[in-house]
Amino acid sequence: MKIALDIMGGDAAPLATLQGAVLAAEELPVTVAAVGEPDCITRIAKENGLDISKLEIVPAASVITMEDEALSVVRAKKDSSMSVGLRYLAAGEADAFVSAGNTGALLAGATLLVRRIKGIERPGIATLLPFACPVLLLDSGANLEITPHNAVIFGMMGGVYMQNMYGLDAARIGLLNNGTEEHKGLPFQQEAYKALLDAPLSFVGNVEPKSLPFDVCDVLVTDGFSGNILLKTVEGTSKFVLKAIKEMFYRDAVGKLSGLMMKSRMASLKKQFDTSEHGGAPILGMAKPVIKAHGSSDARAIKNAVRQAMQYVEAEINPKIEEQLPRFAKKKEETNT
Amino acid sequence: MKIALDIMGGDAAPLATLQGAVLAAEELPVTVAAVGEPDCITRIAKENGLDISKLEIVPAASVITMEDEALSVVRAKKDSSMSVGLRYLAAGEADAFVSAGNTGALLAGATLLVRRIKGIERPGIATLLPFACPVLLLDSGANLEITPHNAVIFGMMGGVYMQNMYGLDAARIGLLNNGTEEHKGLPFQQEAYKALLDAPLSFVGNVEPKSLPFDVCDVLVTDGFSGNILLKTVEGTSKFVLKAIKEMFYRDAVGKLSGLMMKSRMASLKKQFDTSEHGGAPILGMAKPVIKAHGSSDARAIKNAVRQAMQYVEAEINPKIEEQLPRFAKKKEETNT
Repeated sequence: MKIALDIMGGDAAPLATLQGAVLAAEELPVTVAAVGEPDCITRIAKENGLDISKLEIVPAASVITMEDEALSVVRAKKDSSMSVGLRYLAAGEADAFVSAGNTGALLAGATLLVRRIKGIERPGIATLLPFACPVLLLDSGANLEITPHNAVIFGMMGGVYMQNMYGLDAARIGLLNNGTEEHKGLPFQQEAYKALLDAPLSFVGNVEPKSLPFDVCDVLVTDGFSGNILLKTVEGTSKFVLKAIKEMFYRDAVGKLSGLMMKSRMASLKKQFDTSEHGGAPILGMAKPVIKAHGSSDARAIKNAVRQAMQYVEAEINPKIEEQLPRFAKKKEETNT
Repeated sequence: MKIALDIMGGDAAPLATLQGAVLAAEELPVTVAAVGEPDCITRIAKENGLDISKLEIVPAASVITMEDEALSVVRAKKDSSMSVGLRYLAAGEADAFVSAGNTGALLAGATLLVRRIKGIERPGIATLLPFACPVLLLDSGANLEITPHNAVIFGMMGGVYMQNMYGLDAARIGLLNNGTEEHKGLPFQQEAYKALLDAPLSFVGNVEPKSLPFDVCDVLVTDGFSGNILLKTVEGTSKFVLKAIKEMFYRDAVGKLSGLMMKSRMASLKKQFDTSEHGGAPILGMAKPVIKAHGSSDARAIKNAVRQAMQYVEAEINPKIEEQLPRFAKKKEETNT
């Protein structure tokens, strides 16, 4: 199996991504195709004593930055590592593509170069929320607005992912809403509720975010705007609470002693909320596996994202999504919208 | 000063509310008008040894439950404690009204019986988020959708509240969005951004929820749907992290010893995230002060909500909002919408 990796994308690229590529090539049963500027890769490797002999270098002449327009990936920067990597994937040279770069560009590039699974209107970014029982949030920000039919397809794709990556029997699908009653929310939520209820899914109804961490669903379906607000609120709040606890331990000698006793446990709790532990977020609905690694990914996060891409391919997520699609054909009344 | 209190509304009513009323009447320089069924109040007081001699009893024959339609407060249940209390406030018999009951009914009842401040189209529920530097979230769920002009008025009202209740010089107003760049979000966020920028406010731009806990703004303006999702995500996530830490302490003898050393600090951290500590959420924009106490309020939370109502009246929040309004007249192009 071969995983293509964007060496030039991400806050800590190219060093962290190259280190991650080397780690992945050493520890995982995959070939890593490192997409980037060959001179830059050679220099970084030399400066940091990295053995890149196991990597396959796929040359690319430029870099998509965070400031670049999404469409630059198919226009001004066709020679960027992201663009080259996506075309490498589309051509069947690799089994999956991982990038920690500009999310908007990755989405636009994947849509135009890799294309969607036939029958999927909107791919969605699927993020695993770091609760005791993980919840897959879909969409996390790819489509600020979606239709009720999109919500149903998100539920199906998220279910396929959770069942095949985490061995669940039947993933419980919830709809993000401001209350549990079926009439809650804006017209979108009210219609999506009905559409999800009619679909062949284990739909558990509306889910309020205050009960979300306590094992009420496996997949949370929503539009990308609300999903992004939810995701970033979880990030901000958990970071704030953990910081407050750390300060509590640091306040004085008693705190420090107590903190010393709890050191390894606090570290593992922090790890639970550390995005770099969870690999990346697959863009579900693309014709080939594309994984968005967190922008702030370090070497270990990159390695984890490569492993996740590998597992995604092995679990045959895409063929299984395609297999499900005929059961989720659009209702007549929606066909014209 | 006299504060009217809905004795019959809330998850733990009428006992917790009556205990809260007694606490408030004993500890605060206010008269508490306890609105509820007189027989029920007398019986509960007797059964629990509560001295209600300091309370003024305002009789009401029925109760709005969580299942009641919002408009029942002005229709089938005109004789409910919530309805009677709101009319008591409207008639000038009390200076403010506090209820832990059905939010929808309180909003509908306040709008129809107490009415809005002249010139305010949409009142908003203002909730204080429990971060190190508190952030006032407005709206938390009263209006699922709002206009850019509503957002500006929310910013103004929230600013008046924070400046006069918390002594801030100029409250920093932020707009909830899925990114900090000005083009981010749906058309509503893009237009609200421009409207807030043009308004005489200390507008700090778009705020992403991941930076919200770290002192970036004093008032966060948003529509009620996103606001409610954010509020409940903060509640759920903080509860989950604190629970995980508690379990960490309980795991074994070392944990328990360490936990014992940190007991009082953990309690104060838990208190910070405990909604009952923060009193209630004022419905800003009503012609007279109406405070929504948390549904799960215990006696202390009720007392805190009564104190908050008292401070709201003393700080002259409503007259100050009215004073500001002429500076925030609708732009011509919006007048017809």
